[in-house]
Amino acid sequence: MSEVAGRLAVQVGAWCLQRENGGRGILLGGVSGVRPGKVVILGAGIAGTSACQVAVGVGAHVSILDVNPTKLRYVHDILHGHVTTVMSNRANVEEEVSSADLVIGAVLIPGAKTPRLVSRAQIATMRTGTAIVDVAIDQGGCIETIRPTTHHDPIFVEEGVVHYGVTNMPGIVPNTSTNALTNATLAYAMAIADEGLEGALRADEALRKALNTYDGTVTHVGVAAAFGLEHREPADVVG
Amino acid sequence: MSEVAGRLAVQVGAWCLQRENGGRGILLGGVSGVRPGKVVILGAGIAGTSACQVAVGVGAHVSILDVNPTKLRYVHDILHGHVTTVMSNRANVEEEVSSADLVIGAVLIPGAKTPRLVSRAQIATMRTGTAIVDVAIDQGGCIETIRPTTHHDPIFVEEGVVHYGVTNMPGIVPNTSTNALTNATLAYAMAIADEGLEGALRADEALRKALNTYDGTVTHVGVAAAFGLEHREPADVVG
Amino acid sequence: MSEVAGRLAVQVGAWCLQRENGGRGILLGGVSGVRPGKVVILGAGIAGTSACQVAVGVGAHVSILDVNPTKLRYVHDILHGHVTTVMSNRANVEEEVSSADLVIGAVLIPGAKTPRLVSRAQIATMRTGTAIVDVAIDQGGCIETIRPTTHHDPIFVEEGVVHYGVTNMPGIVPNTSTNALTNATLAYAMAIADEGLEGALRADEALRKALNTYDGTVTHVGVAAAFGLEHREPADVVG
Amino acid sequence: MSEVAGRLAVQVGAWCLQRENGGRGILLGGVSGVRPGKVVILGAGIAGTSACQVAVGVGAHVSILDVNPTKLRYVHDILHGHVTTVMSNRANVEEEVSSADLVIGAVLIPGAKTPRLVSRAQIATMRTGTAIVDVAIDQGGCIETIRPTTHHDPIFVEEGVVHYGVTNMPGIVPNTSTNALTNATLAYAMAIADEGLEGALRADEALRKALNTYDGTVTHVGVAAAFGLEHREPADVVG
Amino acid sequence: MSEVAGRLAVQVGAWCLQRENGGRGILLGGVSGVRPGKVVILGAGIAGTSACQVAVGVGAHVSILDVNPTKLRYVHDILHGHVTTVMSNRANVEEEVSSADLVIGAVLIPGAKTPRLVSRAQIATMRTGTAIVDVAIDQGGCIETIRPTTHHDPIFVEEGVVHYGVTNMPGIVPNTSTNALTNATLAYAMAIADEGLEGALRADEALRKALNTYDGTVTHVGVAAAFGLEHREPADVVG
Amino acid sequence: MSEVAGRLAVQVGAWCLQRENGGRGILLGGVSGVRPGKVVILGAGIAGTSACQVAVGVGAHVSILDVNPTKLRYVHDILHGHVTTVMSNRANVEEEVSSADLVIGAVLIPGAKTPRLVSRAQIATMRTGTAIVDVAIDQGGCIETIRPTTHHDPIFVEEGVVHYGVTNMPGIVPNTSTNALTNATLAYAMAIADEGLEGALRADEALRKALNTYDGTVTHVGVAAAFGLEHREPADVVG
Repeated sequence: MSEVAGRLAVQVGAWCLQRENGGRGILLGGVSGVRPGKVVILGAGIAGTSACQVAVGVGAHVSILDVNPTKLRYVHDILHGHVTTVMSNRANVEEEVSSADLVIGAVLIPGAKTPRLVSRAQIATMRTGTAIVDVAIDQGGCIETIRPTTHHDPIFVEEGVVHYGVTNMPGIVPNTSTNALTNATLAYAMAIADEGLEGALRADEALRKALNTYDGTVTHVGVAAAFGLEHREPADVVG
Repeated sequence: MSEVAGRLAVQVGAWCLQRENGGRGILLGGVSGVRPGKVVILGAGIAGTSACQVAVGVGAHVSILDVNPTKLRYVHDILHGHVTTVMSNRANVEEEVSSADLVIGAVLIPGAKTPRLVSRAQIATMRTGTAIVDVAIDQGGCIETIRPTTHHDPIFVEEGVVHYGVTNMPGIVPNTSTNALTNATLAYAMAIADEGLEGALRADEALRKALNTYDGTVTHVGVAAAFGLEHREPADVVG
Repeated sequence: MSEVAGRLAVQVGAWCLQRENGGRGILLGGVSGVRPGKVVILGAGIAGTSACQVAVGVGAHVSILDVNPTKLRYVHDILHGHVTTVMSNRANVEEEVSSADLVIGAVLIPGAKTPRLVSRAQIATMRTGTAIVDVAIDQGGCIETIRPTTHHDPIFVEEGVVHYGVTNMPGIVPNTSTNALTNATLAYAMAIADEGLEGALRADEALRKALNTYDGTVTHVGVAAAFGLEHREPADVVG
Repeated sequence: MSEVAGRLAVQVGAWCLQRENGGRGILLGGVSGVRPGKVVILGAGIAGTSACQVAVGVGAHVSILDVNPTKLRYVHDILHGHVTTVMSNRANVEEEVSSADLVIGAVLIPGAKTPRLVSRAQIATMRTGTAIVDVAIDQGGCIETIRPTTHHDPIFVEEGVVHYGVTNMPGIVPNTSTNALTNATLAYAMAIADEGLEGALRADEALRKALNTYDGTVTHVGVAAAFGLEHREPADVVG
Repeated sequence: MSEVAGRLAVQVGAWCLQRENGGRGILLGGVSGVRPGKVVILGAGIAGTSACQVAVGVGAHVSILDVNPTKLRYVHDILHGHVTTVMSNRANVEEEVSSADLVIGAVLIPGAKTPRLVSRAQIATMRTGTAIVDVAIDQGGCIETIRPTTHHDPIFVEEGVVHYGVTNMPGIVPNTSTNALTNATLAYAMAIADEGLEGALRADEALRKALNTYDGTVTHVGVAAAFGLEHREPADVVG
Repeated sequence: MSEVAGRLAVQVGAWCLQRENGGRGILLGGVSGVRPGKVVILGAGIAGTSACQVAVGVGAHVSILDVNPTKLRYVHDILHGHVTTVMSNRANVEEEVSSADLVIGAVLIPGAKTPRLVSRAQIATMRTGTAIVDVAIDQGGCIETIRPTTHHDPIFVEEGVVHYGVTNMPGIVPNTSTNALTNATLAYAMAIADEGLEGALRADEALRKALNTYDGTVTHVGVAAAFGLEHREPADVVG
C-alpha cells in the first residue's frame, strides 16, 4: 500500500498544481526551454522512494530527505544521481520546503503517530499556489497544516498552499490496490482454505499475531488496551 | 504548446482513471507485483513524443503509433526501446486501442482538421472505465466520440469510456505555458520594440508570414479565404 | 553459475524462436514499428534477475514472477520499472504464460527439487512456435513438459512449443563459466596450496562442510545417506 | 529490413560463440566478476546502430566504426557514451578487429557492392573461436573471408574464426520481418486496391520507380542492363 | 575539437572549484545527503551539449541555455529530461548565472567573434569562490570578465569568481585531440598522398576551399581581406 | 567521507592525465570517434562504488575489482552492466593495471592498514603518463609506489606514472565535506546540547564508544594501548 500511496502522491500533487484547483498552474516536468517544478519528498522509505521514482520519471527536480544515509544512498544509486538526496534536519527541511512547488509527506512509522516535521510557519514561506500531499494523513501526517479530507472534497487552501489530505489514498485506484493487497494476503487465505482456520493459525505465527479475537477472547494486546479489556496470547487460546 | 499538451495528456489521463472520476481505478505505473496500465498514443510528433516520455517515465506500458518510420525510430532510440513503436494502420490501431487503459490522441496537423483515426465502434471495444484524452480537440480530435469540454466540467462518459476533451489544455498550467509561449514570441516582440513594426516586418520573413491584416488590407491568404475577401502579399503591402 | 545460466536462457530462447528451429520466427526485441516479443520469467533470484536484465536489454517485453515482494521491488528498482513484476500465484502464472513468446523457468532452490509451477495444460495454451527454457532442468525444472536434452540435440517440440532442456547450460560457454567458477573456488585452492589440505580444512569451516570423504571415512551426511553408510563430522575426522 | 538484420546479427553472433558451434565458449555480456566479450561493428547506419543497441543491451563491450562523425555522435548520444565510437580507417579497423570476439559487418550501400574493409590477413589476427557475421552478405559483405551460407548449414570456420554468412537473414524471423515489410509496403498495396494499378502508378512516383516491366516493356534501367534489353521510362509507358 | 573543449570544460571547472585554487570547495556531483553543485552552460551546440553530458554524468544540477528550441529539445531528449533546458534571453541568463557554481561559456560561432552574453555586473552577483570557464576564449569568449590565460598560469580571480581562460584548451589533452583532429583530416592527407596535391585539389571542393595560397597567389578571401591583398578562386588557380 | 574521496578520485585523476601535469594528455571520456580512457578501481566499497559511478558518468571504460561477488553484482546492477566487474586476484589485478590509464586505489578497511595489492613491478608495466590516485593513502594505500603528498605539491612521478597521494582528500572540497560530516555528527551534537554531555553519554552507547578520555581516565581501549596506559569502560566511568 505504501508503494501505491507514494506513486499516487505525485499524480494528485500534479493535479493540485493545475490552475482550476487553485494551483500555480505549472507542469511538474516543465517542457524543453522552461524550468521544471520542484518536488520535495520527506522520507525515503518505500512510499517516499516510490514517489521519488515517479517524480524523477516525469522530469521534475526532486529532493528527498531522510535521517538514514543508507536509504539516501540507495535512492541515489538506483536513480543514477538524478535526484538530490538531503540529510533531514530542521535547517535542510526549511530550505527545501520554502523553494518547493510540491511537498510530499512520506513519513510512515508502522503503528505510530507520524512525527511533525514541517510547521505552519514553514508552510507560510511557500509560494502561493504550491501544493502539499501527505501520504501518512491516516496517522496524522508530518505537516502541521494538513488535515483529513475526502474523495469528494479532496483539497483545501491554507497559507496560500493547496493541501490534499484524502485519507485512504489507495482507494482512488481500488483496482491496483486490491491487486497489491491480494498479493500480501492471498497466501494466508489459501492456508485457511487448505488447513482450516485452526490449522492455519497453529502453523503460522504471523497469522496468529494478526488475530484480534478468538472464541470470545481478545487475543491482541492493542485491541485489549484500546477497549480496556484483558487479553490472552493467541497461542494459548488456539491451543 | 504541443509539448505542454502532450505532457499534460498523461497527467489528466491518469486523473480520469481514478475511481471518483468514473475510471477503472488503476495506477498507470502499477506497483511492484502488480501490472502497470497500458497507454496508447496516436501520433509521434512533438505532442505524442512528449506524452510518450512522460508515460514511460511513470512506468506505464506504452505503445506509440505513427505512419512515419523515421519518427518511430527516433522515439525508440531516445527511450532505449522501452516503448512499443507500431506502424499506424487500421488493424494496428484497432488492436492497440482495444487493449488500452488510456488512449491519447496526439495527431496535430498544423492548420488542418485532424483526420479521424478511431471510430465509435473501436471505442466500444475498450473496457469500462478506461479513458481517452485528445490533445487536438481544438482541431476536432482524431477520435469519433470525443467532443469539446471545459475546465469546469472536463469529462463525460460515452461507451463506458471516460473522455477528456478540454479545449486549450495548456490553460491548465498557464504559468508553464506562458513561459513556453514567451520563448517562442519574445524575439519578435523585441524586434518590434527595437525597430518598430514596419522595420521588423521588413527584416523578418517569418513575422511577415504571420501578419493577418495591415493598413486595412488582408495580408493572410487563409484569413482572406475564410471571409471571402481578397488578399495581398505582406511584402507588397509593407513596402 | 546461476548468473551464467540466466543470461544464457535469453540467448538460447531467442535461438529457439528462429524459424529453422521450429519457432514462430520472431525477434524478441522487435524493431521500430513492430511489436517486440514477450518473455515471462519464473523466479526473481540471481538466475531470474540476470535473465531479466538481458531480456530487457534486447528490448523484449518482460514479466517476472516471484512470491517474494522484496525481490520483485529490487528488480523493479534497478530496471527503472521497465519490467512488469508480478506476484507469483496460479492465476498470474497462467495469465502470463498463455501470452508469452518465451517462458524461462528460473526457480532454483539449492539442494532441493524444483517445485512444479506450470502444468502441461497451461503449456498447451501457448501459441504454436513459442519456446520454453528451464535453467533448473538439472533439478527437474519447474515446467511439467520439460525434460533433459543434450548439447547435440538440444530441443524438442511438445504441445507445439519448442523446449530447450540442455543440462549443464554453463557448458555452452565454458570459457566464461570457468572464469566464474574460478572466482568462487580460487580462494580455497590457494588456501590448500599455502597451508596443505589438513591446515586448510582446520582453518576454514566452509571447506570442511564441502568434504565428502577423508581418510577412508564418509564425512558428508548427504553422501552417507545416498549410499546407506555411516558418516562422521569432518571436524572430528580432520582433528 | 536493416533493423531486423542488425538486431539478428548479435543474436546469431552470440550463438556462433557457443562451444558446440566451434566458438570460444564465451557469453557476450559476461557475468559479474567476469569480463564481457567485445563486439566490433563496422558501419553506423541503421543496421549497425541497431546491432549496437542490442550488443550494448546485453552488456557487451562495443566498438562501432564509421567514416561519418555525425553518425558516430548520434550513436554516442543515444547510448549515453556506453559505446566506443571509432573513426573508420585502416589502422583503427585493424586494431579493433584483432581484439574482437565478434565482428559484425554492417556496411550496406543501397544498390552497390559492399566495399572490402577487412582482409584475410586481418581476420587471421583474431583469436581462435571468435566469430564474424556479415549482414551485407547479399551484396558481397565487407570481409574478405565471408561467403554465402544457408539456413541449414549456416556456419563455416576459416582462419580459426566462425563465419556466419546466411543470405536473407530476415528469413530467420519471418514473422517479425513480414510485419516490418508490410509496414513499408502496405501503403502501396492500398493505393493499388483503391485506385487500380494504373491510377496508383500515375499518382506515385516512388511506385513508378519500382516498376520492372509494364505491358511487355522493360521499364527499369537496371533490369534492362542485366538482360541486355532496351528500356523505357515508366512515366512514358504508363501514360 | 568542440567536443574535446566541451568535455574538458567540466573537468577544469571542477578543478577551479577546489579550495587550493580559490574555489568554494565543493564537489560538483555532491554526495548522497549533500546537495550537488549547479552548472550553467551557455550554448547548446556541440561544445555545450558535450559539456552538458559530462556535467549530468558526474551528478551535477545542470541548466543549459540556447536560443534554438530544437537544440534544447534534442538535449532534453537524449538526457531523458535530467537537465534543465532554458530559453536564452537576458532575464534567464541573469537568473541562472547568479545561482551557478560553475558557468561554462560554450557559444562558438564559426569564423565570428563570440557575442557578449554575460556582463561584469552579472558576474558580480555570483557567490565568492564560484567559477567560470569559457571554451570560446580563442574567439573572445561570451563573458565580459574573461581574458586569455596560459597552461602555466591558467586561472585568475575577478569579482570573487575563479576564471579559467586557457586558450587552445584541447592542448591540455593532446593525445585525445590529435586523434580527433586526425579523424577530421586523415581523409585529406590520404587523398593528397594518393593523387598528389593538384589531383586532390581538383577532386575535392572542400579541400580547395581550405586552400590559403597556391603558387604565389592568395586563394582564400578571408586571408586576402586580412592582408589587404587580392585573391583568386582556388578553382581558377589550380586549373 | 568515503563517498567524497571516491568521487574526488576521478576528478583529480583526470587532472593528473593532463599534459601539463606530466600525464599522457588524454580525456577520460574520449569524444565520439576517439577511444575513451580506461579507469581501474581497486575495491567496491563505498569509495570504490562512488568512484565507479563518476567514472562511468564521464564516459570512461571502467573496471572495478573486489573479492566480494555480492558487492560486484550490486555495482553491475545499478550501472546496468556498463562497467566491467572483475574478481580481485593477483592475475586479474596485473592484467587490469597494466592496461589502465588511471588506477584508483579504494581499499579502505576501517581501523586497519590497507593491504598491498599492486607492486612496484606491476606499476612499471603501465604506460608512461598514466596515473594513480589512492584514496586510502592515510592508511598507507594499496599501491607500493604511492606516498603521502600535500595540497601544495600534490603529485610526483615514479616509474613514469603520475602519482597523486594527497592525504585528507576531502579537504580539497571542504564545503561539501563539512556538510557530509555534519550529516553524520549533528545528531550527537544536538543530543549533547539538549541533555548535557553526561546525559547524552548515558543515553547513547555509540557516543560512549567514541569517548577517548573522561574525567582524567582513559576510556578507549585503542588509545590506552597506543600509550601503554590502563583503560576503563566508558559505562563504568560515566556512571
